[in-house]
Amino acid sequence: MAPNQVAWIAVDWGTSAVRAWAMDGGDRVLADASSAEGMGTLEPSGFEAALIRLVSDWLPATGAPPVPVFACGMVGARQGWREAQYRDVPCPPLGPEVTRITPEDRRFTFTILPGLAQKRPADVMRGEETQIAGYLAMRPGFDGVIALPGTHTKWAHVSAGEVVSFQTCMTGEMFALLADRSVLRHSVQAETIDLDAFRAAVADTLSDPQKLAARLFGIRAEALLSGLQAGSARARLSGLLIGLELAATRPYWLGQDVVLIGAPRLSALYREALAAQGATAEILDVTAMTLGGLAVARRLEQGKTE
Amino acid sequence: MAPNQVAWIAVDWGTSAVRAWAMDGGDRVLADASSAEGMGTLEPSGFEAALIRLVSDWLPATGAPPVPVFACGMVGARQGWREAQYRDVPCPPLGPEVTRITPEDRRFTFTILPGLAQKRPADVMRGEETQIAGYLAMRPGFDGVIALPGTHTKWAHVSAGEVVSFQTCMTGEMFALLADRSVLRHSVQAETIDLDAFRAAVADTLSDPQKLAARLFGIRAEALLSGLQAGSARARLSGLLIGLELAATRPYWLGQDVVLIGAPRLSALYREALAAQGATAEILDVTAMTLGGLAVARRLEQGKTE
Repeated sequence: MAPNQVAWIAVDWGTSAVRAWAMDGGDRVLADASSAEGMGTLEPSGFEAALIRLVSDWLPATGAPPVPVFACGMVGARQGWREAQYRDVPCPPLGPEVTRITPEDRRFTFTILPGLAQKRPADVMRGEETQIAGYLAMRPGFDGVIALPGTHTKWAHVSAGEVVSFQTCMTGEMFALLADRSVLRHSVQAETIDLDAFRAAVADTLSDPQKLAARLFGIRAEALLSGLQAGSARARLSGLLIGLELAATRPYWLGQDVVLIGAPRLSALYREALAAQGATAEILDVTAMTLGGLAVARRLEQGKTE
Repeated sequence: MAPNQVAWIAVDWGTSAVRAWAMDGGDRVLADASSAEGMGTLEPSGFEAALIRLVSDWLPATGAPPVPVFACGMVGARQGWREAQYRDVPCPPLGPEVTRITPEDRRFTFTILPGLAQKRPADVMRGEETQIAGYLAMRPGFDGVIALPGTHTKWAHVSAGEVVSFQTCMTGEMFALLADRSVLRHSVQAETIDLDAFRAAVADTLSDPQKLAARLFGIRAEALLSGLQAGSARARLSGLLIGLELAATRPYWLGQDVVLIGAPRLSALYREALAAQGATAEILDVTAMTLGGLAVARRLEQGKTE
């Protein structure tokens, strides 16, 4: 790959990592790169150098026209490179409002896509709106529910090309804290999980969500008293928390076909949990949706300037 | 205080700290000491030296009769000095079964009180049984509910001198993880909390416990979008989690007078939350209850040998 093939650069800049893709004029991936220099590790003044470290091979010669970079995610947070003001739902996932930065290094331009905000109940997203836009680019007439499992899982109602409403659950972050840092860490260290135990735990929380805090300690107690296996214990922790999320988001998925955009293993667990409640779900590749959404943003910008 | 006044030594050895009290023959405190050498920081072989570091001033001269030490808590866990097998409920909080250690240092003897276990639903406690015994020593005919707020809050049904059943909620540990290590840490750093916001959050979870995971992220979103104050945000986090616990333990407190044994500030929050649901609660000093229970254990041992 020669730098002159690179028509634009796509960037997904999260809290703990940054990923970049060199794209050709037909929105095909020429190369990709990633690093642990997420928003959480950088001062605002440090983003430009971090980006250059990641993509310098893809940048044109000095004096050639700059390559446009389009970025989504926490790079636009208050603690990011520059704050990109949220757009309020209901609205299309991406719109003409973007935040443009003029970098010191003139070999590229940098455009940040803003996240979405909802007034009541208060909620925010940064990055997932781009994945939703990628999905809508593929299925323009879609009307339904998109769930984006992750650290902070998002559920979005999408209709007529707009995000109508959405809801965030801290399920992934709670799982990580409880599995790695709570007393349960002694009981849940396993590579694979027991799907039957997972399904049973989902059903338990869905029917009695109020028992969560007691059931969590029950994992520890059963490990001590009756040798509960780590694969079952981890499955139960995951199932209790995903079950609580499904209890909170029932209006989103009940009787719906759900679209899941997230990491494959986690998305597969959500599909299992939904299937047990009679809801079908289709899993889509999160990278493909991110790139699709960033390509939409690039076309929106081209439409402005052409 | 001279070492020859010390009739016995009381020890509460938890996961993250150890506290000791020099006691006279009338069970009055002569002196106290504490250190961060909790069970979690020690190998089994390290407990004896850690204890001597803490109480050496109170030990008799070599050759004098050894001073008896009575200890409760995680010192008797599998990872403690020596495992003290759980006793199964229903049973009195303390009984004749104890674990005696013969230390290398002959100036003291060391007795570990076992915790309690419940088969279904699986549950365990270590240390709280001693506090319950301290309360029963003061109110022998007590019949009712004792809640022990802490990292792992315990709720116990006590009747006819026995712990009939109990239930643990991980509320305190979840609060610490979410307040200090999750994305909410940016929004909840406050010294004091807003009691109205606390009460409202308790009521919110009690009426819709399934919305917890979504409401937690709402704290972050409101802080970003409408400048929710840290004192209100922290109150809401605390209220949502204590509310979830009250939803799980409703059979314990509904229509009951509850006895609270725990740290004063935390116990006061539980009393607030219970009062808003129409349940009254009396707060007792946790140290007094621990010492009272350890004194019961000492008298049980004296009864065996006299």
